[in-house]
Amino acid sequence: MTTASSHVGLTSHPGSIFKEALPIRWGAADPALRGPVVATMTNRSHRNAIGTHSGSYSVYRALATAAGDLTPEHRPDLTNTNPVVDIGPFDSWKDPSKMVSIDPWGASVATVFRDHLEGGYDIRPTIAVTKAHMLMPEITEAIAKGRLHIDGKIIRPQGDIAVTKAALDPVWYLPGIAARFGVDEGDLRRVLFEETGGMFPELITRPDLKVLLPPIGSTTVYMFGDPRAISDPSKKLTLRVHDECNGSDVFGSDICTCRPYLCHGIEEAVRSAQEGGAGCIVYYRKEGRALGEVTKFLVYNARKRQAGGDSAATYFHRTECVAGVQDMRFQELMPDALHWLGITKIDRLISMSDMKHDAIVGSGIRVLERVPIPDGLIPKDAQVEMEAKKAAGYFTTDEVKGNDALQQVKGRGLDE
Amino acid sequence: MTTASSHVGLTSHPGSIFKEALPIRWGAADPALRGPVVATMTNRSHRNAIGTHSGSYSVYRALATAAGDLTPEHRPDLTNTNPVVDIGPFDSWKDPSKMVSIDPWGASVATVFRDHLEGGYDIRPTIAVTKAHMLMPEITEAIAKGRLHIDGKIIRPQGDIAVTKAALDPVWYLPGIAARFGVDEGDLRRVLFEETGGMFPELITRPDLKVLLPPIGSTTVYMFGDPRAISDPSKKLTLRVHDECNGSDVFGSDICTCRPYLCHGIEEAVRSAQEGGAGCIVYYRKEGRALGEVTKFLVYNARKRQAGGDSAATYFHRTECVAGVQDMRFQELMPDALHWLGITKIDRLISMSDMKHDAIVGSGIRVLERVPIPDGLIPKDAQVEMEAKKAAGYFTTDEVKGNDALQQVKGRGLDE
Repeated sequence: MTTASSHVGLTSHPGSIFKEALPIRWGAADPALRGPVVATMTNRSHRNAIGTHSGSYSVYRALATAAGDLTPEHRPDLTNTNPVVDIGPFDSWKDPSKMVSIDPWGASVATVFRDHLEGGYDIRPTIAVTKAHMLMPEITEAIAKGRLHIDGKIIRPQGDIAVTKAALDPVWYLPGIAARFGVDEGDLRRVLFEETGGMFPELITRPDLKVLLPPIGSTTVYMFGDPRAISDPSKKLTLRVHDECNGSDVFGSDICTCRPYLCHGIEEAVRSAQEGGAGCIVYYRKEGRALGEVTKFLVYNARKRQAGGDSAATYFHRTECVAGVQDMRFQELMPDALHWLGITKIDRLISMSDMKHDAIVGSGIRVLERVPIPDGLIPKDAQVEMEAKKAAGYFTTDEVKGNDALQQVKGRGLDE
Repeated sequence: MTTASSHVGLTSHPGSIFKEALPIRWGAADPALRGPVVATMTNRSHRNAIGTHSGSYSVYRALATAAGDLTPEHRPDLTNTNPVVDIGPFDSWKDPSKMVSIDPWGASVATVFRDHLEGGYDIRPTIAVTKAHMLMPEITEAIAKGRLHIDGKIIRPQGDIAVTKAALDPVWYLPGIAARFGVDEGDLRRVLFEETGGMFPELITRPDLKVLLPPIGSTTVYMFGDPRAISDPSKKLTLRVHDECNGSDVFGSDICTCRPYLCHGIEEAVRSAQEGGAGCIVYYRKEGRALGEVTKFLVYNARKRQAGGDSAATYFHRTECVAGVQDMRFQELMPDALHWLGITKIDRLISMSDMKHDAIVGSGIRVLERVPIPDGLIPKDAQVEMEAKKAAGYFTTDEVKGNDALQQVKGRGLDE
């Protein structure tokens, strides 16, 4: 496959096909030079990207248009929508290799691309930044037990946490994605097209278009305390990178540690903010190790029903039998959100994942301390996952079990 | 646009293009006659659908293949993955119009399509059914306060809830989707293709392929008590249909009632099961009214910053200014999951949404009682949403406020 790779030199520029399409110079320090990502359908001759906005919700938007509920010409009224705090620009924004899956200028399009907007380009934010108050029973309990205190500002008088939060839609710079995975850009484009069942023929036919907005979920950043402290190396930063697990995060399933560890991360992040530092949770929509919930439930059944029962010794193998891989989360792209925030060091990383740690450190961010989940927060049935992960290289200060011991770590059967 | 609609008569059958592709006769009572949905890429000549498995996670699978982590030829080992309980078949499964966004046979492919699997067809489950135990602080509190009791079976001795749960991937029968929205199938195909930025040219070029697996999120069903009671009209059924709201469901944002109402629904569903009936929660991945979280946060900012502040009187208008519609959730497709479960009547519907109620009743399911959220569970800042919704037609036993009164229902500003 050489169609795309042989065109790598022909980076996108005006005039390649449509005269009106603006060039994107990924990583250019000046947004005017970088240029806006135009992925809307209201004027196709302006498009300079493959795919469109809102990730997988673009399918719903198309359905709304087909049903006649939405006029295809609708352009958003962006009045009053701009970010509640300014994030960046940081040095990382000027390095085309630091962020390949986020448009750093995605929050501020209404300001930095004002001229183009007034000139008729339908440029949409790919990032939104707002404020919220959070009421979580686990935090209420932490206050009641004296582990956290109401300070009136970060934890408000009623026990709610004041937070600044940002949603980030995926914007993939394909040459950068290819480099991150060490593959040829043309091969990446061909496989992305073929293995999705033919999504976006422009991946093949428009090698001049270097940016793809894929139909996947967004990422959410929760910032505790002063958001400016997050990028300030003189302030202590506590951070957790968390991959979605709806069954635990929302419904409290006891087969894993996801919600307990998330709540511990929030508690530690809030404490760090109260002590004058910063706290941050980054939440990635990668359900079931990015295999999706159907595959996840199939694996649960295979684990619980195997000969000898659910066991830490065979935890990863059962996923691989069903899915072909143990994990599809690609921590390679995960640090991009941290670089958007201007993070250069993390004092306390609330994660035991060696894959997350290595991706963060490999991207040039220092990690000073790794914080495992406290033993008391691990549900009994989640011991299988926990011991299997520690044996596979997850960070722990405990003794790592050998194979015989792993076989003794058993989960509940399906009929229990 | 007549390409597809002029071919509506040519329903998919073997030989249309590939001799080896099996026919799909949507709604056929006998699965052997209905035929399997084959959407995998391991043998393209077997494909009889557009798109591929795992919804938006198909993009991650493609990336895993491009990165060399997954061999494109991998076929899942389905040993021990079959459902923990049998759901159906029900009369609704034999009506091609009752379910147009779910494959009712998606859970039992390993059994009903065994011959085809052994014949080399790579047929994958689009539904998985497993068991879990849930530990939720709100339920622990309900037990402590005496509203729920430990019965040893549905609520276990440690306060965890035993649940049967199912994940359902979207499988769209395009003629049925078109009929549900009252649009021409060819127009639907054209707009789905064009407004997504060119996703799946087969929507246009292969009008003989009637089934699409779109890259959107899955749906999860939580069943409390004996799953067979859910479809038994002699048993009392308590049910909530819940649309994802990550900010509240996981992080407890106080701007809406999502998690409090969800927890109330779980409490009522568990109570119904303990009383010998059934309880059910259906969770749909439709973040921010299916507009996605970036749009949702933009709307929050526009609401909080408008002249006069956040107000129930302008609640829906602000969404429409940004998104072009007030809501993109399409409750038209939502009842499909209920028909997969064989539900014909709901004794207690834990929802105030008139759109959800009307879609359920319109699909032929009786609703005996609608249960609003108890006042004590509504966060203060969520009064704006609540009063706006009641004024717009949501179910309530309270007095509905007029415009003057709605203007008095104010939310917090961004700096409070």
